[in-house]
Amino acid sequence: MVKIADFNALDPAEQQPLFLHLKAAQQVELLMAMPIAERKIWMRVLDPDDAVDVVQGVPPSERAGLLDLLDRFSRNEVTALLAYAEDSAGGLMSPRYVRVRPDMTAAEATNYVRRQSARSAGRTVETIHYAYVLDVEQKLLGVISCRQLLSSQPEVLVSEFMSTNLVVIHEQMHEKEVAKTFSLHPYLALPVVTTDGRMKGIVTLDDVVDVVHEQHTKDIQKMGGSEALDEPYLKIGLTKMARKRGSWLMALFIGEMFTASAMGYFEAEVAKAVVLALFVPLIISSGGNSGSQASTLVIRAMALGEVTLADWWKVIRREVVTGLMLGALLGLTGLIRIMLWQGVFHTYGEHAVLVALTVALSLVVIVLWGGLAGSILPFVMRRLGFDPATACTPFVATFVDVTGLIIYFSLAKVILVGTML
Amino acid sequence: MVKIADFNALDPAEQQPLFLHLKAAQQVELLMAMPIAERKIWMRVLDPDDAVDVVQGVPPSERAGLLDLLDRFSRNEVTALLAYAEDSAGGLMSPRYVRVRPDMTAAEATNYVRRQSARSAGRTVETIHYAYVLDVEQKLLGVISCRQLLSSQPEVLVSEFMSTNLVVIHEQMHEKEVAKTFSLHPYLALPVVTTDGRMKGIVTLDDVVDVVHEQHTKDIQKMGGSEALDEPYLKIGLTKMARKRGSWLMALFIGEMFTASAMGYFEAEVAKAVVLALFVPLIISSGGNSGSQASTLVIRAMALGEVTLADWWKVIRREVVTGLMLGALLGLTGLIRIMLWQGVFHTYGEHAVLVALTVALSLVVIVLWGGLAGSILPFVMRRLGFDPATACTPFVATFVDVTGLIIYFSLAKVILVGTML
Repeated sequence: MVKIADFNALDPAEQQPLFLHLKAAQQVELLMAMPIAERKIWMRVLDPDDAVDVVQGVPPSERAGLLDLLDRFSRNEVTALLAYAEDSAGGLMSPRYVRVRPDMTAAEATNYVRRQSARSAGRTVETIHYAYVLDVEQKLLGVISCRQLLSSQPEVLVSEFMSTNLVVIHEQMHEKEVAKTFSLHPYLALPVVTTDGRMKGIVTLDDVVDVVHEQHTKDIQKMGGSEALDEPYLKIGLTKMARKRGSWLMALFIGEMFTASAMGYFEAEVAKAVVLALFVPLIISSGGNSGSQASTLVIRAMALGEVTLADWWKVIRREVVTGLMLGALLGLTGLIRIMLWQGVFHTYGEHAVLVALTVALSLVVIVLWGGLAGSILPFVMRRLGFDPATACTPFVATFVDVTGLIIYFSLAKVILVGTML
Repeated sequence: MVKIADFNALDPAEQQPLFLHLKAAQQVELLMAMPIAERKIWMRVLDPDDAVDVVQGVPPSERAGLLDLLDRFSRNEVTALLAYAEDSAGGLMSPRYVRVRPDMTAAEATNYVRRQSARSAGRTVETIHYAYVLDVEQKLLGVISCRQLLSSQPEVLVSEFMSTNLVVIHEQMHEKEVAKTFSLHPYLALPVVTTDGRMKGIVTLDDVVDVVHEQHTKDIQKMGGSEALDEPYLKIGLTKMARKRGSWLMALFIGEMFTASAMGYFEAEVAKAVVLALFVPLIISSGGNSGSQASTLVIRAMALGEVTLADWWKVIRREVVTGLMLGALLGLTGLIRIMLWQGVFHTYGEHAVLVALTVALSLVVIVLWGGLAGSILPFVMRRLGFDPATACTPFVATFVDVTGLIIYFSLAKVILVGTML
């Protein structure tokens, strides 16, 4: 966090690089703390795509004021960019890029690129590495790299050496898809076009990295059982944070309410064998943990394209084997724990062996069940057309809690009938 | 997943771009399915940093065989790269980059760059955009961009227009730090140097994006309560997967064992008021969920630099207010649920109001406690010198399960004494 006093204390030569590399939220904070005259200078330093982020970062009532600080050309660019959804390719792109015509010679193009580059000197990376070949209708025909310009014979035409094997991004494409497109191709920048092929701007890989980090934050927050905050933890209003956390906490709470109903159904058994209640948290949390593991691994593997719908049977087979191994491990540990305590403290009464067996067997079945439920759910969701996000992991745990209780008490009824029940 | 038959069926012009953009694991699979002669052709197509990944992807016994397929120059490069840890800057870098001398003129440098570029034509992005200025000892003095070469007067010396304000990466730097360095600077490639400033190679932003994705997968897997798999879900051996999942499941299980001890401590109370047991899963899971939320949000905010150690008091204040709001929400819902069921089904006996109060108050306290525990733990970990990773989120839930039980039954003893207890 850079304070305005610290910023003002900097050497002017250090201010610009610092300012340009700050996140939009930080730039907004500094700008709003400046007198108008300085604010104007710094707004004009920003590339149009960064200026858009700043304008979107202030309250709507302040936006027109900020736009007015820009020169007319930039204001038009920024206004055009503001029309795009923030999470679309149009919202990510810069409208500034180097363009050439197909019928220029390499020498003419070099000259032309040099002049366009000079204008953007000192700015960020956007305009540097590729020049795009457009026809008179702004339709994208090809791309040439700076290296190609250096290596071409001066008299050869751009159309003869440009690459026409183009990867393009549609202006309305969601930023997640943009990130995916970049991950599939080894380019540092890609052109953004309209449906009829007119070029609107470029997206560079560094913008995409920010998208990837944001997405990561959202994924993790949802996996932690909360709606994505979309604002820094210390900045978001408390009621807003409570609302975002409360909605999910409430949904999970309502799911967990079925545990009270499930246990209520077995209340007579609990009354007769109170010892059974002691292991309820241990057993259901183990099922929940096993379910979280499986759903997390399968959903992530789906997101990475390692697992597809067609692999459902392979996944189930893997989870059956793994679930049995893990269940046996936990069941055996539980058995040993109970017998050990029984031997030392005589904690669990005359039927301790049967109790231990019930707990151990329940652990095997519930850990297996957790793994199966957690791995099948993502397939069901995808089959129904939903995107199985890691967001559903907390719900898997809740589902396994409820069903795990039923499994535990049903097994207890079978094993303990005639002795404790 | 590309099968060798599909690959062979492709037009030769399509094979190369496809092959170059596959992940190393896929390249290994295709290579191992080819006859030696073809394998040699495709090994030689790879850039040295990609060849390293392939060599590391085959069993140790096969490695020498693959290295022998390379020409001597590349073999030396690859062997040098193999000496670096896979997750270090050296393990990420390409040893191929364009170099110039400081006492060349712009015209000489352009010529020199052109010749070096021609040699790497058709390769991936590595060598394209910057030329590095090295002295006779290979020490890095500066960098010039392709754009600067285009715009310079032919007779000016490289040393006069090169940028000397350099961001460099040390060859032993961990890949996570490399990713962080890129996120702080707007460059698409950075030079890798030794401690005494000799240049060893370059890392490009697209390699870093892969690191970020891998890191994301690890974070998510750990948050799901499993060790990071480090291999695709469908490829990893079942015993290996069971070991990676089992170690964490076991750790959580051992933590949860304390719930049995805690409940055992209150066994007499449970026997007298069985109805208390019915709400155990509901109450402890709500505490666990609240704890997961708070720890996830705080840990992520720390990782993003939004929250520092000095903010501990701000965080606690926020969590107290949020926890009270969320606790009140859940407590009230629980109260209504119990009174409603009591009104309709008479489920909870003559002291239902007191039971409802106990549950509601416990929810308030435990949700608050979960939020506090979940947000304080990351500060404690960081203070002790550990990196609080989202990995500890499942353990927070376990900790809150155990302590939540104690809170619940202690409150019950106070509220229900003289009536049910």
